[in-house]
Amino acid sequence: MRRAKITVVGAGNVGATCAHWCAAAELGDIVLLDIPRTEDMPRGKALDLMQASPIMGFDSNIVGTTSYDDTAGSDVIVVTAGIPRKPGMSRDDLLATNAKIVTDVAENIKATSPDAVVIVVSNPLDAMVQQMFKVTGFDAAKVCGQAGVLDTARYRTFLAMELGVSVEDISALLMGGHGDTMVPIPSCTSVGGIPVTQLIDSARLEEIVERTRKGGAEIVSLLKTGSAYYAPAAACTQMVEAVVKDKKRVIPVAAYCDKEYGVGGYYVGVPVVMGSGGIEKVIELNLTEKETADFNNSVQAVKDLVATMDGLLSA
Amino acid sequence: MRRAKITVVGAGNVGATCAHWCAAAELGDIVLLDIPRTEDMPRGKALDLMQASPIMGFDSNIVGTTSYDDTAGSDVIVVTAGIPRKPGMSRDDLLATNAKIVTDVAENIKATSPDAVVIVVSNPLDAMVQQMFKVTGFDAAKVCGQAGVLDTARYRTFLAMELGVSVEDISALLMGGHGDTMVPIPSCTSVGGIPVTQLIDSARLEEIVERTRKGGAEIVSLLKTGSAYYAPAAACTQMVEAVVKDKKRVIPVAAYCDKEYGVGGYYVGVPVVMGSGGIEKVIELNLTEKETADFNNSVQAVKDLVATMDGLLSA
Amino acid sequence: MRRAKITVVGAGNVGATCAHWCAAAELGDIVLLDIPRTEDMPRGKALDLMQASPIMGFDSNIVGTTSYDDTAGSDVIVVTAGIPRKPGMSRDDLLATNAKIVTDVAENIKATSPDAVVIVVSNPLDAMVQQMFKVTGFDAAKVCGQAGVLDTARYRTFLAMELGVSVEDISALLMGGHGDTMVPIPSCTSVGGIPVTQLIDSARLEEIVERTRKGGAEIVSLLKTGSAYYAPAAACTQMVEAVVKDKKRVIPVAAYCDKEYGVGGYYVGVPVVMGSGGIEKVIELNLTEKETADFNNSVQAVKDLVATMDGLLSA
Amino acid sequence: MRRAKITVVGAGNVGATCAHWCAAAELGDIVLLDIPRTEDMPRGKALDLMQASPIMGFDSNIVGTTSYDDTAGSDVIVVTAGIPRKPGMSRDDLLATNAKIVTDVAENIKATSPDAVVIVVSNPLDAMVQQMFKVTGFDAAKVCGQAGVLDTARYRTFLAMELGVSVEDISALLMGGHGDTMVPIPSCTSVGGIPVTQLIDSARLEEIVERTRKGGAEIVSLLKTGSAYYAPAAACTQMVEAVVKDKKRVIPVAAYCDKEYGVGGYYVGVPVVMGSGGIEKVIELNLTEKETADFNNSVQAVKDLVATMDGLLSA
Repeated sequence: MRRAKITVVGAGNVGATCAHWCAAAELGDIVLLDIPRTEDMPRGKALDLMQASPIMGFDSNIVGTTSYDDTAGSDVIVVTAGIPRKPGMSRDDLLATNAKIVTDVAENIKATSPDAVVIVVSNPLDAMVQQMFKVTGFDAAKVCGQAGVLDTARYRTFLAMELGVSVEDISALLMGGHGDTMVPIPSCTSVGGIPVTQLIDSARLEEIVERTRKGGAEIVSLLKTGSAYYAPAAACTQMVEAVVKDKKRVIPVAAYCDKEYGVGGYYVGVPVVMGSGGIEKVIELNLTEKETADFNNSVQAVKDLVATMDGLLSA
Repeated sequence: MRRAKITVVGAGNVGATCAHWCAAAELGDIVLLDIPRTEDMPRGKALDLMQASPIMGFDSNIVGTTSYDDTAGSDVIVVTAGIPRKPGMSRDDLLATNAKIVTDVAENIKATSPDAVVIVVSNPLDAMVQQMFKVTGFDAAKVCGQAGVLDTARYRTFLAMELGVSVEDISALLMGGHGDTMVPIPSCTSVGGIPVTQLIDSARLEEIVERTRKGGAEIVSLLKTGSAYYAPAAACTQMVEAVVKDKKRVIPVAAYCDKEYGVGGYYVGVPVVMGSGGIEKVIELNLTEKETADFNNSVQAVKDLVATMDGLLSA
Repeated sequence: MRRAKITVVGAGNVGATCAHWCAAAELGDIVLLDIPRTEDMPRGKALDLMQASPIMGFDSNIVGTTSYDDTAGSDVIVVTAGIPRKPGMSRDDLLATNAKIVTDVAENIKATSPDAVVIVVSNPLDAMVQQMFKVTGFDAAKVCGQAGVLDTARYRTFLAMELGVSVEDISALLMGGHGDTMVPIPSCTSVGGIPVTQLIDSARLEEIVERTRKGGAEIVSLLKTGSAYYAPAAACTQMVEAVVKDKKRVIPVAAYCDKEYGVGGYYVGVPVVMGSGGIEKVIELNLTEKETADFNNSVQAVKDLVATMDGLLSA
Repeated sequence: MRRAKITVVGAGNVGATCAHWCAAAELGDIVLLDIPRTEDMPRGKALDLMQASPIMGFDSNIVGTTSYDDTAGSDVIVVTAGIPRKPGMSRDDLLATNAKIVTDVAENIKATSPDAVVIVVSNPLDAMVQQMFKVTGFDAAKVCGQAGVLDTARYRTFLAMELGVSVEDISALLMGGHGDTMVPIPSCTSVGGIPVTQLIDSARLEEIVERTRKGGAEIVSLLKTGSAYYAPAAACTQMVEAVVKDKKRVIPVAAYCDKEYGVGGYYVGVPVVMGSGGIEKVIELNLTEKETADFNNSVQAVKDLVATMDGLLSA
């Protein structure tokens, strides 16, 4: 058997930590790529990671690089590239900048790893994954975005803390966009199988949902000089594992929906079955009226974002 | 830190396989005990297990013995002791025989490991765990029975097979007794958080529940000369881990219920929080009328079984 | 990525336990095969193993069968088939019987999994692996035998017990045949890198080697009604993992040696590099005069055994 | 069983990554502490780590804090505190600054966790661990320093790369100080048990040793704006695991040597047995004349360093 080849684009905290989790789980060989300006930095992180391997007992060839040649023929690619929003930068400036970055990454991926499953984490997520899909021209099943696994992980963490129980026993599902337009589905949240509504009252549950919505901002406000990377990297790793081990995980992913939920050709957070083929199935749930309305709001926000991006890119 | 001390009573397939999973997960040091008539057999299995350790990379002192002295001061004890039903043996003969075996085990545990959490797997489970509780005189939280984790695992396996998805994403809960009086709680079964009723129609779901009910018999009919041991041992190991790592797992366990569900002092399968203290909480669900009726049937069956056992023991 | 396909021939204790370790480590999908006379037994064990998966959290499709059709296209095949020696049975009777069994297995493998790496565990090992090589006609690198990993594991266990240290820190190498003609290489035994000769005197070390030589018999004498299976299964699993994950493990394996060590075309226990290609390299050590003599003795015993087998098969 | 309580002092890259590995391996509950000036930063990293737990499936309470009160009663404490050397800063300035920092940490540990095993990683290591020992007044077995596990891991990585084999099969031992005065012991380096001298010629081996000696600087030169943290954190985690699981690992550690090797009351890198009691045994090797001379050089460098530190602190 050939080992899986996993490329992580962007050797910042999320990217390097993702490489770290993937290597520790022996998911495959790893290429950690960053832009030429970072010079030897990706090589330094890759070497440091390799040097952890005799202690942790994993065999993984971890290579740092600034050249896409080294990523050729990847099975899975995680794209963390993009800049964070800086003080004084408008939301549109960020969108335009990251869209250009992702466009460049997409062109390189298309040229060097035409069969890869691509997992986008760059922000703003819903627009970036759409751009990746458009530029690579890959089958929609092969391009997806990470947001729901992270949001759900935060939600599950808060629920486990609230109830004083193992995180292993919390199941949950969040749909729609990442952040403010996140759509909680209380009927899809359970503890050891038990509907959460039997264990936490709705007012308290709403507080926990609200904390989840602002989960990324909470970390930023604590760290002050950066944003979360452990949980985001773990979320990407779970998706990589689903592909590499063909696990058929049922998880919320930013997936391309055309007829599904009547979305009409956009990426939005929905439950999917994820395996070696990428997004092997979008699961269509029966939503309540309220959930449907919230979901449609979320979809509209995605459409607006994509339209803005397209406008900026063609300007 | 002191390593946990885990005793497994009964070195048959379930017991030895449980020792195996516990050791491989480095849950603690292990004593594998069987009756004196088995002579060196437990020592042989323990040594064989130890010899797997350099390959698998676990450090666990595994001791085989026929003397309870070697089990003294155990933190957790798994009781797999008891004979299987032989052709021509009446159900009552089996009950009487195993009740005596468990009584003997209980007296020994009481004398040598007064602070242990005791997990009973011997059959018929609901009576054996009651007897263990009575003879040891231990706090009810410290004595419990394994049935629900196994039943649920079978159910989850069948659901994963039906849907073609990862077993990791199936949550479920089964209550009541082990076997025919098992009470499925469809509202407590989900896939990636999604209620199973949105994914499988009720007729097919009932078939899967029915297969689960007869899950042990299915394995017996295939093996012909024995019964299941891999999944039962895994189930016990999960409970041992919950105690040793204080994980606060939310799992279905045969737990002592007095006021809970109005049971009145019997062991019956209910969802609990399991941690270092044993059964730290019995979770009381809102059941539907049908579920309540089924559960009460199950409880009645347990009461009848215990009454029969008590009659046989005092005869 | 496609999951690896692992076939285990023989659903007895070694085979089923090997399936168990392989599944728990998510090394791939598993086919557990036994002869038609066992009827549904392999299916029963496979189903029981599957039912452990939701608890242990592994996704592996485990199939029991009596038909080689189900094993078609396997990447790795572990052959545990063969009968144990029964009271009153001559050594030659055993040899003839198992050679015929292995011949049948080899023909089936050749027909259905022409690209597999085959790991033989059947006894007497050195003859059985030679027969497998001859009948399949596979490249020598693709056919090998398990003996050294197990012997070394026993040796490492005894050394760890002697010194009171972690099994993880013991490295060792044993060459030659399995059992009486085993050749210890004291210069290749170390503890945290420290030569064992600095920690244990030579008289005591010889006792430990001797106990290792008789390691299988010690377990048989304790169990009375069977032989070891946990450590043998773990040993096979390590070799399967080396192939499936292309780990390039440096381990002692019964490998085909022609010019290597001047063996002249026989299977004998030597250190190799094992990866996705099977035996990717035989490592040739500088042996002392004593070690060379012992190794040559061991090789001669293998040659004699193979000659006897060939005579019996052509009779 | 009570979960182990693990405190990591210093929430920088090494500290947080150590918390991360410890949590992922479920070694216990974790307190990540930094100085008050970092405000909420440790809390942010702890929360981010917690949010990875539902995905990775570990239960660990991870708390970020700036108060030693939260660390009270720790079983193990990893001390990563200290500043890196800044441009223009003299070696003595660094020594004085970090000695004061470690003194403060030591006083706090003494007051709040009198029974902890303390693992120091702060630089310059050999002086910092001596200061920790002196200020806490703890038993020498309870205070140790991490350097050898990391150095050895780098060495093992380079050897595995050179030979194209699994890191799991490389054993090695490096003694003496961290960095330039590191003492390689070629007789304690092996591959699958095989002495490395049979596989790599001495000139090439010396190059690999030299690369190892400068292993930290190599990472710094690649990263440019920081130093290694993945492998250092993994090294600390292995030591924490040795204590928490009482593994009796045989690893190189900066341990207090009085009569051992004739050191006379200083901390220096030697092979030890590490378990729940901390440094349970210093292993005394037979060294060659050359190794002895190199080791004595290394010891002398430690003595000089400590003398300089003591001078600076009393100035």
